[in-house]
Amino acid sequence: MSLVAGFGMPLDHEETTPSAEGFREDGGGGPDADFVFEVEAAIALGDSSRVHELVGGLHEADVGALLERLSHEARPRLVELMGADFDFTALMEVGEATREDILEELPVETLVEGVRELESDDAVAILEALEPEEQDEVLDALPAQERIVLRRSLDYPEDSAGRLMQTTLIAVPPFWTAGRVLDFFRETEGEELPDSFFEVFVVDPGYHLLGTVFLDALVRARPDARLDEIMQADRRRVKATEDGAEAARLFERYNLVSVPVVDGSERLVGVLTIDDIVDVIQEQASEEIKALGGVNPEEELTDDFWWIARSRFAWLFINMLTAFITSTVLKSFQSQLEQMVALAVLGPIIAGQGGNSATQTMTVAVRALATRELNRSNALKIIFRELAIGAVNGAAFGLVTGVVAANWFQNVGLLPVMALAMFTNLVAGAFGGIVVPLIFDRFKFDPAVSSGPFVTTITDVVGYGAFLTIASIWFHLG
Amino acid sequence: MSLVAGFGMPLDHEETTPSAEGFREDGGGGPDADFVFEVEAAIALGDSSRVHELVGGLHEADVGALLERLSHEARPRLVELMGADFDFTALMEVGEATREDILEELPVETLVEGVRELESDDAVAILEALEPEEQDEVLDALPAQERIVLRRSLDYPEDSAGRLMQTTLIAVPPFWTAGRVLDFFRETEGEELPDSFFEVFVVDPGYHLLGTVFLDALVRARPDARLDEIMQADRRRVKATEDGAEAARLFERYNLVSVPVVDGSERLVGVLTIDDIVDVIQEQASEEIKALGGVNPEEELTDDFWWIARSRFAWLFINMLTAFITSTVLKSFQSQLEQMVALAVLGPIIAGQGGNSATQTMTVAVRALATRELNRSNALKIIFRELAIGAVNGAAFGLVTGVVAANWFQNVGLLPVMALAMFTNLVAGAFGGIVVPLIFDRFKFDPAVSSGPFVTTITDVVGYGAFLTIASIWFHLG
Repeated sequence: MSLVAGFGMPLDHEETTPSAEGFREDGGGGPDADFVFEVEAAIALGDSSRVHELVGGLHEADVGALLERLSHEARPRLVELMGADFDFTALMEVGEATREDILEELPVETLVEGVRELESDDAVAILEALEPEEQDEVLDALPAQERIVLRRSLDYPEDSAGRLMQTTLIAVPPFWTAGRVLDFFRETEGEELPDSFFEVFVVDPGYHLLGTVFLDALVRARPDARLDEIMQADRRRVKATEDGAEAARLFERYNLVSVPVVDGSERLVGVLTIDDIVDVIQEQASEEIKALGGVNPEEELTDDFWWIARSRFAWLFINMLTAFITSTVLKSFQSQLEQMVALAVLGPIIAGQGGNSATQTMTVAVRALATRELNRSNALKIIFRELAIGAVNGAAFGLVTGVVAANWFQNVGLLPVMALAMFTNLVAGAFGGIVVPLIFDRFKFDPAVSSGPFVTTITDVVGYGAFLTIASIWFHLG
Repeated sequence: MSLVAGFGMPLDHEETTPSAEGFREDGGGGPDADFVFEVEAAIALGDSSRVHELVGGLHEADVGALLERLSHEARPRLVELMGADFDFTALMEVGEATREDILEELPVETLVEGVRELESDDAVAILEALEPEEQDEVLDALPAQERIVLRRSLDYPEDSAGRLMQTTLIAVPPFWTAGRVLDFFRETEGEELPDSFFEVFVVDPGYHLLGTVFLDALVRARPDARLDEIMQADRRRVKATEDGAEAARLFERYNLVSVPVVDGSERLVGVLTIDDIVDVIQEQASEEIKALGGVNPEEELTDDFWWIARSRFAWLFINMLTAFITSTVLKSFQSQLEQMVALAVLGPIIAGQGGNSATQTMTVAVRALATRELNRSNALKIIFRELAIGAVNGAAFGLVTGVVAANWFQNVGLLPVMALAMFTNLVAGAFGGIVVPLIFDRFKFDPAVSSGPFVTTITDVVGYGAFLTIASIWFHLG
């Protein structure tokens, strides 16, 4: 199996010097193996000009993808060889493990320079990834004004709006006119304005947010229109201490592109933009998917082997305990199983169908809780609906598997026994599948993380328990 | 259990007439039950002015949340009672089932008026939800220019960039100056400009895209700067026929806020903005989560009961077939199970741990394939890593469960038998958990939808098969 088939590279480097256009994708949005190999080679030789040639013209996202592919040793070397030309925003495009991996190898001076180049939200993300002592060293080496802003952001809780926000923004008084703002833009040095911005904030002398004017409204306005005439005064805002996930919900619900961030006294402290929020949304989805699959939501593809093995072990250990609960139920029916081994053969069908059916219900419930579609006002209705679906499918599969089992083992009594047990288990599974996530959510546990083992324990215990009990009665097993 | 506890509403309506501020949230981002009740009452009475009073000042997202809560009959009545004041964008904020539910009840004239009010991307979404004949009726009643634009969008494949894009945009020639563009904004009637925009597109006389100028660059430029001096010429673009999911990946990767859409001959036909893309991203995540949970990715909380029951049945039916495969394996060991019933008690532990461990691997693989972190260049490395994790955890759980089982049944032979079977099954599960999704992905099937039953069939068959075979040999069962 050739992993690079179809993505070969001409051998004659002189003719086709890779450049920004020479970054070949491997079909997965990453650099191809040959390109990575070339970069690794240039790094190994310490050939700074060749590294510049290869990497210099790349978009920061592509540099990020490249860093992910490089070896542990080559990563910080690349940053050093690029020197002042290395764009630290590329470190925003790599996984957390890779970022920390690189940062811990870099000298403090390089970090200081890198952080100074960045917008405040990215600078905060870099500082977050540093060890506390190193964080202090970097902060101390920054000019006072930058240090104060970054320290304030870092004082907000992790994953809060205050950490994600951009603090460079344009705030002007309400009596300015549209024309004056436009003049202000033209007169101000590019360096002092944010790299990109969508709106102008209108504030009073105490920096309290009065309203905002989007650029498209500004350029449409008469030059002599006062900002307080054209601003949107009722703009939604988020508190800096609020969770990023909450802010993301606001963006989604109201289709926002940016939202001002205020402190406890409604003073403007920053702005959250949609591109930061997209990362939060994507991150949340990933975490929910991993949690539902029994994987630590923090696990990244680039994480350390032993860390991953241990975290998977922890989850499997809980599942093992629940498996022993099921086995205890089975053991209590040991003599019945001996008398009628068909029950041991058929039991997994009842338990398995119940587990799969309950997982369907649980998935729907967890997702609907995450999107806030499921809430107090419709919970009862959805519970009844899921019970009804469990009953319908329980009856259907009870009949089908009962008929098959009765024929297979030439024992007509297996039909009512299978049917009744299957029905019971699918109804119990539906109940567990929706009620367990609701309970976890009610008590502020993440239902995606915790529901799975509980729900399948219900269907295993009820499945085997009901099946063996009903069979014991029907077939008079003692 | 009171569903509205804590969100009560004063009984004296005269004093606190609900208005935009009167829309009380129920903690889940939706309107509270009392508010819904009041709106339902006003609708039942046909009291148009009361409906205006209650709903008139709400944000479209809140009207959408309200529509979701209303009864089937009340929904179209609300639209009719609001008349020309009903903002059709609210229909963008409801689930697909609710949208179709409302649209099929509305007269064609109302639909025509509603569609005319909307931006082109939303108009397309409304038209998509109509029956073909009704779609034609509405299109025929529109002015020629709007009809042509909408028909062209509808000609693009479902979920393509062409369907999602906004066609109202600002395109100007390259020789215009920044000052002239600003004058153009001020002179143009508000109606003819897009509701909101971030950039100006620079095109040649054939409407080929030359570059774009973001508003923040425009307002910073000298008034006499030509657009072709200040535009970004190398802007990323998407083809109108491209899948929306592909476009979403571009936005995420390069942190874009908008991207021009071009047709087959590189002519500018529209613009995709991040707020549309956020919906695509959220939708994709939901579909992946549902698929992994064995739920039809199209299933919505508001869907018809029988549709949901049938679609869940289909998935469970496939699982039932795989359950019978497992039972066939068990049946082939019937005499061994009779001789040693402990095997029937302990088998589910081996199968279950294997299934859970394989699901962990599969979840990581499916997610990493979706985010493109897993690809040809690192697939082999990840396969080996997962096999190693399976081996480590297989050895660990083999030992633990073996010791417990040997003690429980006072049979020391169960230790090596359990340990060996567990090890085999976790390694096999790890292999299946990563290779099955990779194969599905390779052949362009969605790995999230299809991998589950295959992977658990592997761990059930290998789990029971290995355990019973090893036990038969060790204990000389015939």
